[in-house]
Amino acid sequence: MDINVDMGESFGRYNLGNDAEVMKYITSANVACGFHAGDPLVISETVQLAKKYGVAVGAHTGLPDKQGFGRRRMDITPEELKSDTLYQLGALDAFLKVAGMQMRHVKPHGILYRMVAEDERYADAYLEAVSLFNPKLYIFVQGNTLIWERGKRMGLNMAAEILVDLDYDDDGNWMLERKKKPRSPEEVAGRAVMVAREGRITTISGSEISARADTICCHGDSPNAAEVVKKIKEEFERLGIPFYRIGKAPEN
Amino acid sequence: MDINVDMGESFGRYNLGNDAEVMKYITSANVACGFHAGDPLVISETVQLAKKYGVAVGAHTGLPDKQGFGRRRMDITPEELKSDTLYQLGALDAFLKVAGMQMRHVKPHGILYRMVAEDERYADAYLEAVSLFNPKLYIFVQGNTLIWERGKRMGLNMAAEILVDLDYDDDGNWMLERKKKPRSPEEVAGRAVMVAREGRITTISGSEISARADTICCHGDSPNAAEVVKKIKEEFERLGIPFYRIGKAPEN
Amino acid sequence: MDINVDMGESFGRYNLGNDAEVMKYITSANVACGFHAGDPLVISETVQLAKKYGVAVGAHTGLPDKQGFGRRRMDITPEELKSDTLYQLGALDAFLKVAGMQMRHVKPHGILYRMVAEDERYADAYLEAVSLFNPKLYIFVQGNTLIWERGKRMGLNMAAEILVDLDYDDDGNWMLERKKKPRSPEEVAGRAVMVAREGRITTISGSEISARADTICCHGDSPNAAEVVKKIKEEFERLGIPFYRIGKAPEN
Amino acid sequence: MDINVDMGESFGRYNLGNDAEVMKYITSANVACGFHAGDPLVISETVQLAKKYGVAVGAHTGLPDKQGFGRRRMDITPEELKSDTLYQLGALDAFLKVAGMQMRHVKPHGILYRMVAEDERYADAYLEAVSLFNPKLYIFVQGNTLIWERGKRMGLNMAAEILVDLDYDDDGNWMLERKKKPRSPEEVAGRAVMVAREGRITTISGSEISARADTICCHGDSPNAAEVVKKIKEEFERLGIPFYRIGKAPEN
Repeated sequence: MDINVDMGESFGRYNLGNDAEVMKYITSANVACGFHAGDPLVISETVQLAKKYGVAVGAHTGLPDKQGFGRRRMDITPEELKSDTLYQLGALDAFLKVAGMQMRHVKPHGILYRMVAEDERYADAYLEAVSLFNPKLYIFVQGNTLIWERGKRMGLNMAAEILVDLDYDDDGNWMLERKKKPRSPEEVAGRAVMVAREGRITTISGSEISARADTICCHGDSPNAAEVVKKIKEEFERLGIPFYRIGKAPEN
Repeated sequence: MDINVDMGESFGRYNLGNDAEVMKYITSANVACGFHAGDPLVISETVQLAKKYGVAVGAHTGLPDKQGFGRRRMDITPEELKSDTLYQLGALDAFLKVAGMQMRHVKPHGILYRMVAEDERYADAYLEAVSLFNPKLYIFVQGNTLIWERGKRMGLNMAAEILVDLDYDDDGNWMLERKKKPRSPEEVAGRAVMVAREGRITTISGSEISARADTICCHGDSPNAAEVVKKIKEEFERLGIPFYRIGKAPEN
Repeated sequence: MDINVDMGESFGRYNLGNDAEVMKYITSANVACGFHAGDPLVISETVQLAKKYGVAVGAHTGLPDKQGFGRRRMDITPEELKSDTLYQLGALDAFLKVAGMQMRHVKPHGILYRMVAEDERYADAYLEAVSLFNPKLYIFVQGNTLIWERGKRMGLNMAAEILVDLDYDDDGNWMLERKKKPRSPEEVAGRAVMVAREGRITTISGSEISARADTICCHGDSPNAAEVVKKIKEEFERLGIPFYRIGKAPEN
Repeated sequence: MDINVDMGESFGRYNLGNDAEVMKYITSANVACGFHAGDPLVISETVQLAKKYGVAVGAHTGLPDKQGFGRRRMDITPEELKSDTLYQLGALDAFLKVAGMQMRHVKPHGILYRMVAEDERYADAYLEAVSLFNPKLYIFVQGNTLIWERGKRMGLNMAAEILVDLDYDDDGNWMLERKKKPRSPEEVAGRAVMVAREGRITTISGSEISARADTICCHGDSPNAAEVVKKIKEEFERLGIPFYRIGKAPEN
């Protein structure tokens, strides 16, 4: 199982997340590209940190709204989304190139995650930008959504994701929080194990629903993100659940 | 002789420059990368336009100050300059990659042009960013400046530039204008021819100084930029001055 | 009849609109407040220009999205709208205070104009901000909309507006253009006269619908805005339609 | 003695400072106005918080550079400084007006604090903006600097300030830190007491220099700001040093 966390969300004087600690326990880092969060210096430092711990780096692309942290829906045009995405992919890629690394995945951030899952114009614009830039990139989205299906049809590397530190309703939708609440590491790790072993998750009503994942996500801006991912890693190790980068076989 | 012009400086609703017309008469387009000017959609359109006319594309990197159009000196750190430069190089490169083109040159914009020419910390940070990203890029700067010499010593492709539509003083320094004044196409073309043939330029005092150039520059945000570059091209053709991309021999 | 035009939409190096010319022919200037357009220096100059021609100044408040020129819907919270509005009102007011002038009206810009007309949460947040700041301000909105009715009920100075240079459909809705098309001064002036005299406007289908207005609006960012408003003023004078600031009787 | 702290420096998702706690122990809050830090919603909340604790509110105006937190020198023009200052004063004032409060002071932030102290063009532009807006405002600056003297000559309410949590050299200059280091509350409180009682401060070389203050400042973005100001208040109370808003006599 791959575990991805949003990283590089600090901005200038503003620190967000405990990247130096979280990076030790994860396999994929979704690095903010300067639109919803991050800045060039933060990207540079985050890429170096990922390199140090052998963590795969992906582009966490977002809406051009730092004040709203990419969590406010904006009616951009599909053409704008395509260009905004290419811009962010390229910007991050420069730092990876210089660090001798390769981009491994992409993931839409915040409300954009939902926009591309629900609106086919956005889904197509996003997939087009990613596939033109590098068709081998893994694309982290919610499984069985519109974008997931369209990407599959295009032969792209769609990776289904479960957000183990957010609540889900009975229809399998997660609830966006403008500000992350802290959650018990034990609770989140328990959910992660259930996703990894059984492909199921408990909803806010207490029901269990199918939740098959290629990668699980924790949010880097939650106050105790480091404890949470550390606990997940420990639980996976204790239970013998393989812990590896997406696209790499466990024996690697 | 190569002629380069700043392009892609529009931003959202704001149009600047007459790129569609200017692009017909130049050999190198310095494309703004979204910091001092431009936005992802504008970059995309500008790259397409350059492709249409076979114009070489370079990154016109600037300070992160759209309100000041990159013409207000900012005391960024060399480390910030390095990261800001890499970010912009990568962002533009994504659009070139998708268009099947290659970046050919870089040029620091506005006051940054002067900062890297005068301050060795900035010169080194800029050269380091460019050479790490792609050591084959041509670097357009003022000849015989600190950055020109340091780049030469590093074995980089330094290209000396003369800004034929700006005034020079007797020490060979050009005067930055916050807003471009229109200039007579005949006057600018005359200066361009003198630079191309004699490697000399007339200063504000009326003296002539040495002005050897690998490329000459006109500003795309002057009101009559298209007329100016058209006139230069015509004069070059009339006088048999070879007109070609930097790095390409005339017989190509 | 009052005629209002969007002014002060330039930004740094970017010029938009021909304010110096348009200001001669109008009675109310909607001055951009630095969110969707404008910057402090532009505000300062625009206020001076309005003072010179005795034009009433209002705050043209917008969404925090300069790249989208405030024309991309953003799901801000009502609380954010309230704070964003207060901020912009205060910012403009400082320049009026220093110029010895008083703010006369407010008008939501771009897509915000529609958001407050259609969504009661936004309507209430906007009206609350304006009435807390200064309950005597005229509030320019589309007549008979949700915000118009709610404002009326609160006893605020709601002023119904017709956008004479935009198309209307048969339901009385106007069509937002991301980039203004030029329109014939004669056509727009004809529409303005019809609104002023008959309270009617012709729709895109050719029908006539009721269009009662306290003020009519032309867009300052259309290429020929100055000609259009000049023509309107001439037509009003020729036909003896009184031309005066809202809230002032014609005999003043 | 008045104690002022920078407040309202959070921005969107980014928290900075512990305003809710610090506000309990201070007499003057310097509220960021959205340029170097802060946003409209943060301003609104900060003003409410100041009102709750009866803390005087001032405008903490800065350079338009959120990424650099207003700590990177920018060569803006004096005219830009004047407009930028008016804009920020007005923006904050709207929230005070709505809260039934009055602005009491202004203070330039970060590197602008130094720019107005050292360059007469900036000093004059700043003083002009403030005095046009409200000539009764207290202006917090370093004592005996160029701006302090020019303001005195204009009859403005100049208030000399000592930054008790920064180091001073023997010439009385403080050292700007891009990121605040934590300091021992005891040490800072000791320095505050020495300033209040003796008008002296210890420099980095161990010497004592004159340091007369109308107000002392602690930085709100230091990690332990709340402990520091709490300790200062306790020490003042223990030693019978009057603790009151600037411009108010202790018996009030």
